[in-house]
Amino acid sequence: MNEYRAPLREMQFVLSELAGLNELASLPGCEENSPDLVEAILEEAGKFATGVLSPLNRVGDRDGARLANGEVKTAAGWQQAYRQFCEAGWTAVVAEPEHGGQGLPRLVGTAINEMWKSANMAFSLCPMLTNGAIEAVTLRGSDALKATYLERMVSGEWTGTMNLTEPQAGSDLAAVRSKAVPQGDGTYRISGQKIFITYGEHDLTPNIIHLVLARLPDAPEGVKGISLFLVPKFLVNDDGSLGARNDVRCVSLEHKLGIHASPTCVMSYGDNGGAVGYMVGEPNTGLATMFVMMNAARFAVGLEGVALAERAWQQARDYAHERVQGYNPAVRGGERIAIVQHPDVRRMLMLMKSQTEAMRALACVVAAAMDKAERHPDEVQRAQAQSFVDLMIPVVKGWCTETAVEVASLGVQVHGGMGYIEETGAAQHLRDARITTIYEGTTAIQANDFIGRKIARDKGAAIGQVIADVREVAAACTVAGGEPFSRLGAALNTSANALTSSVVWMLRSYPEMPGEAHASAVPLLRLAGLVCGGWQLARAALVARRKLEAGEDPFFSAKITTACFFADHLLSQADGLAHCVMHGAPATLQGVLD
Amino acid sequence: MNEYRAPLREMQFVLSELAGLNELASLPGCEENSPDLVEAILEEAGKFATGVLSPLNRVGDRDGARLANGEVKTAAGWQQAYRQFCEAGWTAVVAEPEHGGQGLPRLVGTAINEMWKSANMAFSLCPMLTNGAIEAVTLRGSDALKATYLERMVSGEWTGTMNLTEPQAGSDLAAVRSKAVPQGDGTYRISGQKIFITYGEHDLTPNIIHLVLARLPDAPEGVKGISLFLVPKFLVNDDGSLGARNDVRCVSLEHKLGIHASPTCVMSYGDNGGAVGYMVGEPNTGLATMFVMMNAARFAVGLEGVALAERAWQQARDYAHERVQGYNPAVRGGERIAIVQHPDVRRMLMLMKSQTEAMRALACVVAAAMDKAERHPDEVQRAQAQSFVDLMIPVVKGWCTETAVEVASLGVQVHGGMGYIEETGAAQHLRDARITTIYEGTTAIQANDFIGRKIARDKGAAIGQVIADVREVAAACTVAGGEPFSRLGAALNTSANALTSSVVWMLRSYPEMPGEAHASAVPLLRLAGLVCGGWQLARAALVARRKLEAGEDPFFSAKITTACFFADHLLSQADGLAHCVMHGAPATLQGVLD
Repeated sequence: MNEYRAPLREMQFVLSELAGLNELASLPGCEENSPDLVEAILEEAGKFATGVLSPLNRVGDRDGARLANGEVKTAAGWQQAYRQFCEAGWTAVVAEPEHGGQGLPRLVGTAINEMWKSANMAFSLCPMLTNGAIEAVTLRGSDALKATYLERMVSGEWTGTMNLTEPQAGSDLAAVRSKAVPQGDGTYRISGQKIFITYGEHDLTPNIIHLVLARLPDAPEGVKGISLFLVPKFLVNDDGSLGARNDVRCVSLEHKLGIHASPTCVMSYGDNGGAVGYMVGEPNTGLATMFVMMNAARFAVGLEGVALAERAWQQARDYAHERVQGYNPAVRGGERIAIVQHPDVRRMLMLMKSQTEAMRALACVVAAAMDKAERHPDEVQRAQAQSFVDLMIPVVKGWCTETAVEVASLGVQVHGGMGYIEETGAAQHLRDARITTIYEGTTAIQANDFIGRKIARDKGAAIGQVIADVREVAAACTVAGGEPFSRLGAALNTSANALTSSVVWMLRSYPEMPGEAHASAVPLLRLAGLVCGGWQLARAALVARRKLEAGEDPFFSAKITTACFFADHLLSQADGLAHCVMHGAPATLQGVLD
Repeated sequence: MNEYRAPLREMQFVLSELAGLNELASLPGCEENSPDLVEAILEEAGKFATGVLSPLNRVGDRDGARLANGEVKTAAGWQQAYRQFCEAGWTAVVAEPEHGGQGLPRLVGTAINEMWKSANMAFSLCPMLTNGAIEAVTLRGSDALKATYLERMVSGEWTGTMNLTEPQAGSDLAAVRSKAVPQGDGTYRISGQKIFITYGEHDLTPNIIHLVLARLPDAPEGVKGISLFLVPKFLVNDDGSLGARNDVRCVSLEHKLGIHASPTCVMSYGDNGGAVGYMVGEPNTGLATMFVMMNAARFAVGLEGVALAERAWQQARDYAHERVQGYNPAVRGGERIAIVQHPDVRRMLMLMKSQTEAMRALACVVAAAMDKAERHPDEVQRAQAQSFVDLMIPVVKGWCTETAVEVASLGVQVHGGMGYIEETGAAQHLRDARITTIYEGTTAIQANDFIGRKIARDKGAAIGQVIADVREVAAACTVAGGEPFSRLGAALNTSANALTSSVVWMLRSYPEMPGEAHASAVPLLRLAGLVCGGWQLARAALVARRKLEAGEDPFFSAKITTACFFADHLLSQADGLAHCVMHGAPATLQGVLD
């Protein structure tokens, strides 16, 4: 398996030219993020990803994490890599400086996090979950909790987890049954079983901080009766030293299709009287807090899609350049050629490359909007940015992960028979990617969020703004004129029409025919992803056109070809998807599934 | 994991109503295949698949085949199942009765083979390869070879293998380097290394008969210098008893993404002076013989796509009926519901079901044409049937396998988090399916065969006939009229237009712009698959409509809804694919892939 190399020039291009890194540096708290500094940070991160994390990716997949006597042993090399990761200060780059974080903009954090995920997704899940816990405690934790836990999670000394799922409560968190009984001293005793807990137990740090959804004894039924608790593996004494072992244990590990090195734990709380827990936020508001974390986590999982697509693409591209097989069908009696010259291998690689670039661009544009939503001095600007972020999170999560599975599968195909052999490494990317459309809310959950809270609730205002922006880029392509820009503009416009009709249909159907609306939710999400991807690549092509006026540069010419490929091979699906949205629901609902 | 149950009523419907089982029974040699007899055979096969093979599927995946001291140990239960399989006479149901076969029509053999593949694909590969070897020896073997080997392969006493691939010769068999040196006594000494040899070594039978591609010392370069040899693991004495161990060994097993229980061997020939081999057919015609076998093998792999889709569908459907989660979005304050009631789960299941039914119908129609091509008394009819079979084999192989990967991936998704856990079994179907688009010629190899030998060579005659047949069915739908038939007819017609334009483009481009033609080959193959699938489901809907005149039957009403779903969700992609075929090639060829 090849080692991952961070696509630094591509990332720089996206950050500077598409996501507005320069404007970002004028936001309060971001002043220090000059392009030079960001370049230096990304370069360092890239070295760490290539040198430390990437070489452990295959080892981790092969050996996995193992459970013995309630303790989880991570794969060989994991402990040392984690120590180096903390020492280099990579644990919580976007966390607030007051708690020891580096306070980097989310945009920069997004590029850095993509690298960890590409290099070693199973490893990256540990800091990702810790960051989620940090966000929850920062947002809703009492001062005492913050003082005790925050800094040590930010430094990586302790890690964090999210405990939502129970056997009967997967997508439907209203069904959570874990209990929390108040002890009269401000603490609670937590009991219940949680499943699918990522890094719920491991040997990387001396303590693990679990955030757990549970119900108070008098809590109402359903989602309005769920509270959030912080439950440390070891209680913490007043002097900060570790105290008694808490009543929480990992009782088994799942045997999964992929991310073998990431321990997926069944956690048992309160087998011996109840685990000591501390409430985070107000009673019965746990789900709201989890949702704040979950939005960050959904974005992060969407980014996993980008990252795994990038890794699969790098590996398939390198193999296609090395592997010699067959002849050019257009040349009689020629030499054997590298398979990268075979037209269908090119088609597959271009599908991988163009979609990866489109996904990264969209994810970074959304990340920049998060920074703006948090930090812009103007309230209206903040609100606009936030509504764009809210609209786009299910698209980034749903579209980037579904696409990543396809891209990783293409990566296997490019390798031919070797792709099916585990040692090659291409299959691991497919196995690892396959979870991303499921956890943190399946694609259908994303799509339901998209059509309900994100489209119907504001009567299409936010998505209308996106479509207007897409049309503006299409118009700019048309104005640029000539081949291929006029064609690019037309393709983008056509796909925007398809999205518009589909959204209009959805706005009408959602209140009147909820079954039909939900039946068309995923095709609409996919259509929105395609249009947004085409939008970003067309923006990139327009930038490249301008840059090329200053002189030839293959990097910029490639941007134009890639946008054209995406238009011809992917935007061309837009009308079919719109048909599916607007006409496909009745047969879905009437279908016989005995 | 659920046990597989053969879809007997569906198979009967397809055989009788779509593939013409009754007319087949009038062909010479098929007279005994009355519908009643076929029904009884399929029922028995279904019992064997459910009772013996299906329960070993997960065991085989978990334990895999293991190599120790040059010997391969199959998974627990494998030996007994193989013995039962032979005793029940399932080894070579379509082989000639004169060699101990049952002489069943290929159509019936197709339905039976689908069951083995669904129940336990890794197991089914052993008889599948043996059948390939039987075909080669039957077609081209000398009388002496036939007398010594055929009956014992047909009975399953010995198994057979196909040895094509070498490290440098994958898709490109012209690069084969294995050598065969004549010994002057009619035998040859074979040496070289072969990789990816399915069941190249195992403990199921006392002997294994390898068919091996190799070059004579004076052979010309390239594909015209390859001969075919039969190389038994143990030499056979004149009295039929086993003699000396031959100079061929399994030197390692591949660690694969799926089909773990099927040993994929690296075979070394001639480490100690050369393996004794016997030529099959004339010198330097090995590839032609292999191609005959390969056509059967390609069809069989396409059928693996059907079979794995069926298995994945059954498992996802059952889970969706059992798993309770969430509420109906259309009902306020209702009860929790089984996930089969969630619109997007329905959409996924209908994608699985409709495509599986479409693929099976197409595969069976092609199998029936094989019988006709072999047995019809009229030469013109035989030739027409053969040209349909030749055209369709790359479609069955390419489209059914690509679709199977998607269907198996949907099966994982329907299970949510449980789908990612190996014990559930859904992930195994995806892992097993992932090889089918690769071996026996990748999808691109199928597509290149499709556009070259199957479309360009006869100037579109065969595919023109298919399109005419599709239009006839579309017209019948329109004539039937009313909803949904008029819409079904229109959708089918539109997709036939898309295919027609694409074929016209291909006929023009293939000779003039081979690069462009090959860049559009896979999209064209996929389009052809979709149109043929829609064609078969529309035929099914028309039959169902007629049957429903005699009275209500949910089986037949479902046929109509399923055809509509396929039209709305899959035929709607036809225009996009045609765009891709006709306009997508330049960007594919110009794309920058550094």
